[in-house]
Amino acid sequence: MYSFMNDYSEGAHPKILENLTKYNLEQNIGYGQDKHSEKAKKHIIKFIQNDNVDIHFIPGGTQTNLLAISSFLRPHEAVIAADTGHINVHETGAIETTGHKVIAMESKNGKLSIESIKKALDYHSDEHMVKPKMVYISNSTELGTIYTKRELNDIKKICNENNLLLFLDGARLGSALTCKENDLSSKEISNLVDAFYIGGTKNGALLGEALVICKDELKEDFRYLIKQRGALMAKGFVAGIQFETLFEDDLFFSLANHANKMAEKIANSLENLGYNFYAPPMTNQLFPILSNDILENLSKEFLYSIEARVDKDNSAVRFVTSWATTEESVNKLISFFKSL
Amino acid sequence: MYSFMNDYSEGAHPKILENLTKYNLEQNIGYGQDKHSEKAKKHIIKFIQNDNVDIHFIPGGTQTNLLAISSFLRPHEAVIAADTGHINVHETGAIETTGHKVIAMESKNGKLSIESIKKALDYHSDEHMVKPKMVYISNSTELGTIYTKRELNDIKKICNENNLLLFLDGARLGSALTCKENDLSSKEISNLVDAFYIGGTKNGALLGEALVICKDELKEDFRYLIKQRGALMAKGFVAGIQFETLFEDDLFFSLANHANKMAEKIANSLENLGYNFYAPPMTNQLFPILSNDILENLSKEFLYSIEARVDKDNSAVRFVTSWATTEESVNKLISFFKSL
Amino acid sequence: MYSFMNDYSEGAHPKILENLTKYNLEQNIGYGQDKHSEKAKKHIIKFIQNDNVDIHFIPGGTQTNLLAISSFLRPHEAVIAADTGHINVHETGAIETTGHKVIAMESKNGKLSIESIKKALDYHSDEHMVKPKMVYISNSTELGTIYTKRELNDIKKICNENNLLLFLDGARLGSALTCKENDLSSKEISNLVDAFYIGGTKNGALLGEALVICKDELKEDFRYLIKQRGALMAKGFVAGIQFETLFEDDLFFSLANHANKMAEKIANSLENLGYNFYAPPMTNQLFPILSNDILENLSKEFLYSIEARVDKDNSAVRFVTSWATTEESVNKLISFFKSL
Amino acid sequence: MYSFMNDYSEGAHPKILENLTKYNLEQNIGYGQDKHSEKAKKHIIKFIQNDNVDIHFIPGGTQTNLLAISSFLRPHEAVIAADTGHINVHETGAIETTGHKVIAMESKNGKLSIESIKKALDYHSDEHMVKPKMVYISNSTELGTIYTKRELNDIKKICNENNLLLFLDGARLGSALTCKENDLSSKEISNLVDAFYIGGTKNGALLGEALVICKDELKEDFRYLIKQRGALMAKGFVAGIQFETLFEDDLFFSLANHANKMAEKIANSLENLGYNFYAPPMTNQLFPILSNDILENLSKEFLYSIEARVDKDNSAVRFVTSWATTEESVNKLISFFKSL
Repeated sequence: MYSFMNDYSEGAHPKILENLTKYNLEQNIGYGQDKHSEKAKKHIIKFIQNDNVDIHFIPGGTQTNLLAISSFLRPHEAVIAADTGHINVHETGAIETTGHKVIAMESKNGKLSIESIKKALDYHSDEHMVKPKMVYISNSTELGTIYTKRELNDIKKICNENNLLLFLDGARLGSALTCKENDLSSKEISNLVDAFYIGGTKNGALLGEALVICKDELKEDFRYLIKQRGALMAKGFVAGIQFETLFEDDLFFSLANHANKMAEKIANSLENLGYNFYAPPMTNQLFPILSNDILENLSKEFLYSIEARVDKDNSAVRFVTSWATTEESVNKLISFFKSL
Repeated sequence: MYSFMNDYSEGAHPKILENLTKYNLEQNIGYGQDKHSEKAKKHIIKFIQNDNVDIHFIPGGTQTNLLAISSFLRPHEAVIAADTGHINVHETGAIETTGHKVIAMESKNGKLSIESIKKALDYHSDEHMVKPKMVYISNSTELGTIYTKRELNDIKKICNENNLLLFLDGARLGSALTCKENDLSSKEISNLVDAFYIGGTKNGALLGEALVICKDELKEDFRYLIKQRGALMAKGFVAGIQFETLFEDDLFFSLANHANKMAEKIANSLENLGYNFYAPPMTNQLFPILSNDILENLSKEFLYSIEARVDKDNSAVRFVTSWATTEESVNKLISFFKSL
Repeated sequence: MYSFMNDYSEGAHPKILENLTKYNLEQNIGYGQDKHSEKAKKHIIKFIQNDNVDIHFIPGGTQTNLLAISSFLRPHEAVIAADTGHINVHETGAIETTGHKVIAMESKNGKLSIESIKKALDYHSDEHMVKPKMVYISNSTELGTIYTKRELNDIKKICNENNLLLFLDGARLGSALTCKENDLSSKEISNLVDAFYIGGTKNGALLGEALVICKDELKEDFRYLIKQRGALMAKGFVAGIQFETLFEDDLFFSLANHANKMAEKIANSLENLGYNFYAPPMTNQLFPILSNDILENLSKEFLYSIEARVDKDNSAVRFVTSWATTEESVNKLISFFKSL
Repeated sequence: MYSFMNDYSEGAHPKILENLTKYNLEQNIGYGQDKHSEKAKKHIIKFIQNDNVDIHFIPGGTQTNLLAISSFLRPHEAVIAADTGHINVHETGAIETTGHKVIAMESKNGKLSIESIKKALDYHSDEHMVKPKMVYISNSTELGTIYTKRELNDIKKICNENNLLLFLDGARLGSALTCKENDLSSKEISNLVDAFYIGGTKNGALLGEALVICKDELKEDFRYLIKQRGALMAKGFVAGIQFETLFEDDLFFSLANHANKMAEKIANSLENLGYNFYAPPMTNQLFPILSNDILENLSKEFLYSIEARVDKDNSAVRFVTSWATTEESVNKLISFFKSL
């Protein structure tokens, strides 16, 4: 039984474990102030070609989202997100728990449009309603799609015009940057958004997300806020070593690239076999629409999840590939569909 | 320069890294529902000889504290803690951030007395004040001391009489259980408290604390609450494998025992040399009172921290040993003091 | 210029001011434990024919909503409401500020259907999402409509089947109970819901809402929670005297009845003149659809608000009548429309 | 039985009720944007001789405190207060419920010293602890004492040097300003503090506190925050009319002055009779130390409260006078003591 359930079924890329082992008995300062974290930050700064940022390593994605949003907003301010956005549906109300409303707006293919943002702004007209103050987007999105340079520029423009912060959830930023259709560099992203994060958990690390704060006004006292939410790891160097490993050469890219390639192979085969997709296949998450009839057999050989019931006979299923996905398992999946 | 700053300066015990490597490419279910987490829970259940518990693995200690306290209390309820308690002074107000007051009471040697608990209860007399509903203790404490069986029984008694929950922070539970003076078993602890946790981070794991919920009424929906606070690790098996390793044999004990032994050796030497201690040396945290004159030279060879200024000429310093502390470095520290 | 903007443009019914003056120099115990509050509670208990309730007087509606919802729910639990519900759109995120998500569901004429509730329950399937635990409805609704006995029974049934609490916002309960179409008694309401409140502010009081907690498990320590949110009035007798006055005879009813009658007169005239309504006119809030052409002239003589743009030429406006609305001003409004 | 329990046992000064009655059927705009609120603000601006302020009327004191503190602070920031401060002991953890720690410091006669503030600042040294960001003081204090001009200047100085906000709880500001020993004008206060409030509830109003925000950076969007906490009264003009009445001439002063005079008369008599005081008698709260023997008889004629047990034989009791205290009842209390 092979799992295409998600991109966090395996541990870490072997090189990461090697380095954790290599530095294991070294004594390091706690709480992320060690030399590996410093090196990792330098590598990331080089990667995004922007040294006017603060970088913090946070154990997980939900924690990074709640930390950023609750730290950047005043109590009455709210965040606009796609209705499919992770913060809206899959974080057990983590943002609301910090006191902020998520303004969930209609989306297409997991993406928030400027029309939706404008609609949210128009609707929230006075002090009897929350004040929209931030736009949250994911790249790649929950449906595996990516934002184009033009789209991100348009969103930035409306944010500037309306004094909105722009925050990008990059739990799968690797898959976005290595997507064939992508025309955005990490440098451009860091110049357009006020903060974003680079996901490690879903791209080869045991755990860890690198939060990059670009806007100066958002940087102050951030370590207090990390500690307060329980996100300041005593052994911060464990995250530091992992990000050092991912970014000291192009490992981060090559791992994401592999995941995308594996997905592309599956997508091409399914397209050739005439399958339609719930959202256009672009990165490492695929959403083919399958007849319910075949799900039982599919489940005998593969783990996957159901994204949506499309109609009474068909469902959009979700296949996720990762840095660890083997070509062999991809071939098996393709064979399954060819044999139908 | 050797660090006696804390017990989280090194990575993980080699056997933990070996097992993380061994199971690295295995596919596991996410969010702590994997087989390693299950095995780890079984081992812990055997260890505490109490199978009527729920166990959850949480990345860090502050997160475990805030999660337990905010989940177990209603909004107007407060937690009584020693004024030296971790939740009162070293978590950046994490408990208050979840909405609850910490009622900080006078303590002796880091321990909360039943007199202090009674005083807190007497003082909080009506609905214009918070309602004390939980007692928080640490074992071992922030000053390295431990609770005796009698003391814990007495605290439990007053909790029962006043409808208070009892929560034990076991970030350094290993050091308490392996302390020479200890007369409490983990089974007894699990029968006396309503919830407690077993610290991994400070006893040989890369990260992770095992929260054990003993009282049935506190168990419901706890996974929702973990997720909501950002503490549900996608790769939950990373914690699972580590606790499996610590508890499948007596590794957890032998690591804590080593730390205590190293501390004992230092303490004995310092006592022989005539030094006094800020709190009685019992576990892996030592607080000798040193003349300020020697601190400069001490700092040239060792990292440590200052706990308190005792008077204008003397300070209580803090030395911490760990599973990774070498006998060689202990001897060097002792030599330093002998040579004065 | 006469205002049909809302039902809180004037002070209090003269009898309330008389009683406040009459008892003014009497010394009363603070914080709602005075004899007037006690009498008011007895009157309300008689009114709802249910003495197994706790009653608390809270200064305002938003405060009552946030207090009830945050006190009744655990941190991961959420409240299902109509998308038009007051807590969803007109309380500046007050509920989210207490940490809870409002699950906003499609509604019709301001009412939540059991289909919408079921849809919310189906969607929230596991611990990665909030747990729906309460249904919030208003009676009368934000669109002036009311729930029938059958509808409320159906909602109660689905609540029972799914372990959901049922909370009724009665900021305009008087207008609902005195609505011609109403078939629900206050006794029936108190037996069906777990908590509800009886609005004073919008029915003749200077301020004040009477929160009635019906379910035993929700009653404990509620005064602590009121105090904690800043809602325990030092001069609680100011609310007590007002509710005593409203309920010692049928003043509460007669005031609401007057408001409804005034609205009915306007509605009948507008219907006769061929106007359509955005929601069926039933209580003291009317939503006629008017051509944008006439709004300028209307604004010269009357204050009102715009509820929605129906199409490019027409708007749904909102007229609200109250206990203080004069027949003369109603006639003037009708004349305005007749003269068009 | 006459009550010296507090200064909120009676309703409002008759002139306030007269005005509420006079304007009762006038239609006013809701939510504090009416002409009476505007006039009241102008009167207050004239009173404090500072027109660079924003003024908001809030129903109660706890609500004003929690609103100001939670709005002015970021999540990791804390407020320093006297251990006897209202926010620390008598608001059921209202401040903590908004997420902020109250750093309670030793006080003398209810007053916070600069030594205590410095101690709090010294202790909170890094991001593992909350960051002190505000000083909260009350004038008059919980023990009826007041701050001198010099003391307030000294506190302001330490606030400036350490980037701390200064917030003054003026629930009993009237009693402070009319105290014989007072050398601070309301103008000076408004220039020294960043925000303060002028209490109406305890000085002749039915309810209401006037929050004055002096520092520009704290003013933005404050109405959103008021609404969000449920403190934006629909009938805001009810508070507006009351503050208009208190400040259109010197009513506010004369009421506070009366309360102080009544207290002074009691204090002088008790001093002449040889009684000591728990805190120096200065304003309308008196804390004579009485032998426990006489409390039973005292309780037969008067209501009062016990502030503290001084030793096994003596208690500090609390007598409070108000705008409504009659000379006759004062004489009766004095007679009681003379007859002992």
